[in-house]
Amino acid sequence: MVKPAYVAVDWGTSSFRLWLIGDDGAVLAERRSGEGMTTAASIGFGSVLASHIEALSAPAGLPVIVCGMAGARQGWVEAGYIDVPAALSSIPFAAVRVPGTAADIRILPGLAQRDRAHPDVMRGEETQLLGALAELSDGHSLVCMPGTHSKWVHVSDGFVTRFSTFMTGELFDAIAKHTILSHSIGDAGAIDGNDGAFRQAVTEVVRNPSAATNLLFGARSGALLHGLSPADAKALISGTLIGLEIAGALDAAEPDAPVTLVSSGPLGALYESALDSAGVEPTIVDADAAVRAGLAVAAHALWAV
Amino acid sequence: MVKPAYVAVDWGTSSFRLWLIGDDGAVLAERRSGEGMTTAASIGFGSVLASHIEALSAPAGLPVIVCGMAGARQGWVEAGYIDVPAALSSIPFAAVRVPGTAADIRILPGLAQRDRAHPDVMRGEETQLLGALAELSDGHSLVCMPGTHSKWVHVSDGFVTRFSTFMTGELFDAIAKHTILSHSIGDAGAIDGNDGAFRQAVTEVVRNPSAATNLLFGARSGALLHGLSPADAKALISGTLIGLEIAGALDAAEPDAPVTLVSSGPLGALYESALDSAGVEPTIVDADAAVRAGLAVAAHALWAV
Repeated sequence: MVKPAYVAVDWGTSSFRLWLIGDDGAVLAERRSGEGMTTAASIGFGSVLASHIEALSAPAGLPVIVCGMAGARQGWVEAGYIDVPAALSSIPFAAVRVPGTAADIRILPGLAQRDRAHPDVMRGEETQLLGALAELSDGHSLVCMPGTHSKWVHVSDGFVTRFSTFMTGELFDAIAKHTILSHSIGDAGAIDGNDGAFRQAVTEVVRNPSAATNLLFGARSGALLHGLSPADAKALISGTLIGLEIAGALDAAEPDAPVTLVSSGPLGALYESALDSAGVEPTIVDADAAVRAGLAVAAHALWAV
Repeated sequence: MVKPAYVAVDWGTSSFRLWLIGDDGAVLAERRSGEGMTTAASIGFGSVLASHIEALSAPAGLPVIVCGMAGARQGWVEAGYIDVPAALSSIPFAAVRVPGTAADIRILPGLAQRDRAHPDVMRGEETQLLGALAELSDGHSLVCMPGTHSKWVHVSDGFVTRFSTFMTGELFDAIAKHTILSHSIGDAGAIDGNDGAFRQAVTEVVRNPSAATNLLFGARSGALLHGLSPADAKALISGTLIGLEIAGALDAAEPDAPVTLVSSGPLGALYESALDSAGVEPTIVDADAAVRAGLAVAAHALWAV
């Protein structure tokens, strides 16, 4: 009979996900909530974690492995950064133990690129990378990890050599909610990556990245002059921002580096379509599976579970 | 003795400026307020205008020439657009008279570029261009008009042939207030265009425009890893957005087109520095003087005042 072996947690800025993992490596149960770092910082990280473990009636005292913003300075316990170039396999050994708890709770560190001209940080994505490592091609890979702050990561033979953050998701939200373009978008629903307006915006900005903030205004002038629909205006804004990110990442990469897309759900589909419009055929890795696999690698390294 | 001849109004989205002009063309009095289109739409455009004319004890019934958002669909009376290519000298004759007022009140139209691939609109800037025309070089000029929605306008022998809007000012506000970068900026004061961080951001994004949304994140990672100051973070964001605009405008222009900067005050100084960092030496035209001159040209054309 399978027994619970450890608890794995992906603790983001605005989301909390927990899995109870069996001694055969299978997921026995899952919990998801909006108690990310921001909420947990006021409730208390320890109580949030305990409430979810209790809700699963899991045995007390199981070891817990955590990645993400719980390790930020504003998080539970600061877990610092490993500087790049960094071996992904070294990440588990830099985990920080949460003090004063009966259970062995460890938080994984982030990665820092201290290069003065291109400073950058990640927290959470390093664990996805650790989990995706087996699926990356030998030699050099360029890994795209879309999100609020998208990461493009250069991985060579198990080492992260450099990476770049693009503010795509957060800029989309700020533009869609807090600029005049909000009127052009109205209450348009989810963007379809196969939509012509989305693909055209990607193609246009990849060809002409310096025009990006002019192309964005096309969502308003197109609505005023040509009756551009709210759905197409939203697709235009998203395609322009995602396309600009892809152009920037490819411009900074070796030509023909194989691209791996680590993503799930609708956002993954949007990036797949955008990469296709930019002439890139990525290998797809599921982001949810990758973070669980990364947490599993860490748990095995730390506790031989 | 100088007598008041007409009233000139620049009615923007969020600002209202009025000048009482004498029969010798001199400014007799000025009023400025925050009663732009947004506020005036609820108070009533007619009452806002009347209150300012009364406050100056100006004679009743003076003709009034208006440019800007008062002519937008959401404004006082829609004044439509003239399609480009458009002769600047034709603008006054497309003014729309406000109905039902004793005084002769006319609102100048905007310009529209109906090109399906590059739709664009301006409202207010066409009047500045009309006023700046005498100061533009013969033949072709590229005119930079910075602001919430910066315009770059190609003017040839008195005609506007094409133009592009960049959302620079509005994006800066949205990013500074509504993204994680707000924490890096803190309560930093006005940006100094001669600041190294500002010039460096301009240079970097002009060299590498596709990296724009990555460079913006440098305001956070630089603060986390290298103690980047709030003032430098703010300068970095502003320099990146202004530099991206300049790169986009220059990429779409003939090489070596003479650039004229129509601007005033601190924003003008920022753009002057940014253009200098991008290797451009513009002719400077004061924006306040240009809009008054444009309104004067229109008043003379309409009323022979």
